[in-house]
Amino acid sequence: MMPELRQNVITREWVIIAKERARRPQEFAQPKRRTVPLPAHDPECPFCVGNEQMTVRETYRLTGEHGWKVRVVMNKFPALEPEGDRVRRIDGIYRSMTGVGFHEVVIEHPRHDLSPALYSVEDMTSVLETYRLRYIELKKDPRIEAIIIFKNHGEGAGTSLPHPHSQIAAMPIVPSQVRHRLDEAIRYFDETGDCVFCTTLRRELLDRQRIIEASDHFVAFIPYASLSPFHLWIFPRRHTSSFDDIYDHELVDLAAVMKGVLGRLYHGLNDPDYNFSIRSVPARESQREYFHWYLTVIPRIARTAGFEFGSGMYINTAVPEESAQFLRDVRIP
Amino acid sequence: MMPELRQNVITREWVIIAKERARRPQEFAQPKRRTVPLPAHDPECPFCVGNEQMTVRETYRLTGEHGWKVRVVMNKFPALEPEGDRVRRIDGIYRSMTGVGFHEVVIEHPRHDLSPALYSVEDMTSVLETYRLRYIELKKDPRIEAIIIFKNHGEGAGTSLPHPHSQIAAMPIVPSQVRHRLDEAIRYFDETGDCVFCTTLRRELLDRQRIIEASDHFVAFIPYASLSPFHLWIFPRRHTSSFDDIYDHELVDLAAVMKGVLGRLYHGLNDPDYNFSIRSVPARESQREYFHWYLTVIPRIARTAGFEFGSGMYINTAVPEESAQFLRDVRIP
Repeated sequence: MMPELRQNVITREWVIIAKERARRPQEFAQPKRRTVPLPAHDPECPFCVGNEQMTVRETYRLTGEHGWKVRVVMNKFPALEPEGDRVRRIDGIYRSMTGVGFHEVVIEHPRHDLSPALYSVEDMTSVLETYRLRYIELKKDPRIEAIIIFKNHGEGAGTSLPHPHSQIAAMPIVPSQVRHRLDEAIRYFDETGDCVFCTTLRRELLDRQRIIEASDHFVAFIPYASLSPFHLWIFPRRHTSSFDDIYDHELVDLAAVMKGVLGRLYHGLNDPDYNFSIRSVPARESQREYFHWYLTVIPRIARTAGFEFGSGMYINTAVPEESAQFLRDVRIP
Repeated sequence: MMPELRQNVITREWVIIAKERARRPQEFAQPKRRTVPLPAHDPECPFCVGNEQMTVRETYRLTGEHGWKVRVVMNKFPALEPEGDRVRRIDGIYRSMTGVGFHEVVIEHPRHDLSPALYSVEDMTSVLETYRLRYIELKKDPRIEAIIIFKNHGEGAGTSLPHPHSQIAAMPIVPSQVRHRLDEAIRYFDETGDCVFCTTLRRELLDRQRIIEASDHFVAFIPYASLSPFHLWIFPRRHTSSFDDIYDHELVDLAAVMKGVLGRLYHGLNDPDYNFSIRSVPARESQREYFHWYLTVIPRIARTAGFEFGSGMYINTAVPEESAQFLRDVRIP
């Protein structure tokens, strides 16, 4: 079968769906790796209960019946520092800026060994509430231009500590990738009067082939031009451009959808490493008609190589429709 | 020390140079991995001498005194297929195209076990001559819009076969990443009347801090806003926008510079996995004043994670000036 090029209408990225080289979805399941299970509590772990003094400044704590449920602390090796002014230096081709901003760690759960796929919906809701709260707080700082929330799950996804945690980075600039996506969204809006995300969601719901879960407020699906095996999106049905606009009842609903999606990956593909991130409009903008926040999950199943670096295109050896079908069929015990 | 944000003026990408978290250059050296050395000839390897019938259609062969020196064959699992028309289908948000194009493998050397860092300059020249020849040939096909030449060295860089080889992909579209870079280069040219690559080269040669090697025709340096540890560029001094414009004497000179640079990585960092790619103007364009072809080498030393996926920004834990100093000081036996 001839390979097919697909273009992601949201990012304008092209991907080659390598049908000839495609593997069956179950072939992407990860080999068993951990022979000794993690303990529920690790006395050496800086994120475990009782070791609170091992973390740098706590910026938030959600308390529960038996101590804390979620904590937010400053990253011990921050990529960005909260003190100081944004100072730009331009000397010909050399352009720099002071690295001011925030780099926080969200310790998602007191348990050392729990995978997010195994959280209760209540646990997941607590994490999402924390994200919203910190997002709103960090956005108040006038030096902040963009906020991303992201998670590295597993060593292959770049994490060094197994205790479940995610990160929030509040940055003093709008990265060029974010600008390019905004430009494309604006161009689509100017041409059609529609949000390209809303349009995509409507079409995917009609088409159904790539849908994994659809709840009252959220839809999880594999994009038509998915860049890598099981790369997936979760879109809110309600148009709003920034994650912090989410309502309480939507948070609970999103928690259930995330638990479902992460559970399908966990049980269907044997707990693959993954990254997720929440994409919003830049921090100084709000209520844009053309932009729609969403969550993207990228399982680290395939490796990017010279082709991707050299061209900015991707080769996906999983057919999106088959991957979605596979995830829909996973039975969560 | 406060982290510093730097912007790559060529791609407009921002990177955080994490000086606080930075490691000393020698700390990036790779652990010894291969205990049993590779054989010079592997009877199971499809790229080894004597197994020529195991490869799909040969499109070029450079013969030498003792058989072939370089062979080019079609990729056995091609991402793009040579037969057929470019057919675009547009159905609302679903945009696709037939995957026509070329996906070739360059078998660089008869020896199974040789790393490019250990090639003779003559060997390397033969490989580069082959690249030029295939580039010129593939460009003739009117369906081709962009050609990239790339190499995956080592498992961590995405290769499955250890026999030294690289790849050429000739694509029926211009990827959006390539378009964005062209747009930035055009904008710089419109503002200043200069090629941003030529300007960068002049400044780097004056500054000298990030230069690794400078020959008559090429300069290897770590970019000011290098995205990852030891990410480096090799620029031709002569302005020309496409790799196939390279002259014979420049090919030999580039071969020596590449041997030097790859040798420094090999001996200084213990043969790290890397990707390289050659970036040119799109295939249907030529002699553009604003674009300058170049070669980029990306050692796979750090892992991209949620931060990079979510923001399109990078965190580099190596300081470019220190990395360049380190590579300059490597002694090649």
